[in-house]
Amino acid sequence: MKRIASRDNPLYKELRRLAQGAHARRQGLALLEGVHLCQAYLQWGGTPRHAVFDAVRSESGELRALRDAVPPACQAWLEPGLVDGLETVRSGQGVVFVIDTPAPPLPARADENCVLLDRIQDPGNVGSILRSCAAAGVRRVFLSADTAYAWSTKVLRSGQGAHFSLTIHEDVDLLALSARLDVPLLATTLDDAVDLLRADLPPRAAWVFGNEGQGVDPALQRAAALRLRIDQEPAAESLNVAAAAAVCLFEQRRQARRAGQ
Amino acid sequence: MKRIASRDNPLYKELRRLAQGAHARRQGLALLEGVHLCQAYLQWGGTPRHAVFDAVRSESGELRALRDAVPPACQAWLEPGLVDGLETVRSGQGVVFVIDTPAPPLPARADENCVLLDRIQDPGNVGSILRSCAAAGVRRVFLSADTAYAWSTKVLRSGQGAHFSLTIHEDVDLLALSARLDVPLLATTLDDAVDLLRADLPPRAAWVFGNEGQGVDPALQRAAALRLRIDQEPAAESLNVAAAAAVCLFEQRRQARRAGQ
Repeated sequence: MKRIASRDNPLYKELRRLAQGAHARRQGLALLEGVHLCQAYLQWGGTPRHAVFDAVRSESGELRALRDAVPPACQAWLEPGLVDGLETVRSGQGVVFVIDTPAPPLPARADENCVLLDRIQDPGNVGSILRSCAAAGVRRVFLSADTAYAWSTKVLRSGQGAHFSLTIHEDVDLLALSARLDVPLLATTLDDAVDLLRADLPPRAAWVFGNEGQGVDPALQRAAALRLRIDQEPAAESLNVAAAAAVCLFEQRRQARRAGQ
Repeated sequence: MKRIASRDNPLYKELRRLAQGAHARRQGLALLEGVHLCQAYLQWGGTPRHAVFDAVRSESGELRALRDAVPPACQAWLEPGLVDGLETVRSGQGVVFVIDTPAPPLPARADENCVLLDRIQDPGNVGSILRSCAAAGVRRVFLSADTAYAWSTKVLRSGQGAHFSLTIHEDVDLLALSARLDVPLLATTLDDAVDLLRADLPPRAAWVFGNEGQGVDPALQRAAALRLRIDQEPAAESLNVAAAAAVCLFEQRRQARRAGQ
């Protein structure tokens, strides 16, 4: 256990650089802020590189439980005020984990229910979709190069721990991946599409959800076995992409459940 | 048509104050940024107080069409660079409307399909739910006092124009409202709730969706005719509230459609 009392401490300086985001990503590291994300990481079986606690608050219930679950060698206790420099949320909870970002190898073939994110830019949308995936039973997610970085602080916060029940692949060439799928590719789109509720959805599929403004890339749409649209009021705007993804994944779950009964 | 060349122009100074947000709200005004929101407002039949254009770009297609649709008396053309001071998005499109915020009177009774937002704090979530409401055919939304302000720039951006197909009531005492409902109140909650897919959803209801961390207020839960949960993987976190709202509203739409067939 290290105790850090100064902003000039080398480890503290490194932690501050990691908190900037880009540096952490280059180093293959991610920062988990707050009790809930840190708990989810430990439940998943992870051991943090550094578990950084606000020394003042580290005796309180939830922080103490986290502290007791982490090897002393990776603990750093910060003197009052220092932890604020690491947390991006205003109401920080006095704990930050530095973890190795999982970088799972791409599977040669994909034969399970999975989700592809095509240039989804809003971190809140990416986090919300990861949550919906975990809740709907999807286990694997592929992110294209221009999708918001899954292990950024904002996506982690919005994902609420869903990251740790998923296998997340970043920087994936989705079109190349589409040739390696052993499940049908389903694209959501507004034009030339089948009503989601009239489609017999396969219990295992690769769902692709597209950019907030432009939708799914036309080449991916052409590669899709089925193009689907969500029935809605004629004059209305399309749904937000994370809302649309939730409707699709839970309609698939509904149909699978009905078929299983 | 006014032409503004200086940051010291009184109208420009007032526009800059309005762009801060809090001032606009106090004045009963809202700012619409970008082509899409301004188009949606005009389609709805609105006339802006001020239609502010970047003079350089005002001859281009979409801006020109907007300009032609707005009375000259409310147009203000800004010399290069000035419009940037009004827009909160980086890739501004060179047009901002200042509009009177609709403030519809509360209905004495509510007998239609509607949505209640109980302390939903994230502007992206509020905007996404408004979009889902408009797409699912909900026409009226009630926001509690601590819900993100619907006419803020962030909620407007996330709502993508849905505001103009809805009647939005702000600062509503939802518990008092629940006594004036002529439709059943449906609350989403994780405990002591009926599986959404096993429930016969009424075609008209008042859905209440709750705070991101705390869910629906217990008093509102007690007032609900039906408490519903979305079936999901046992170990998973709950859905993001906007994703959950979309799943509920479109499940209701699916059941209504099936009943109508």
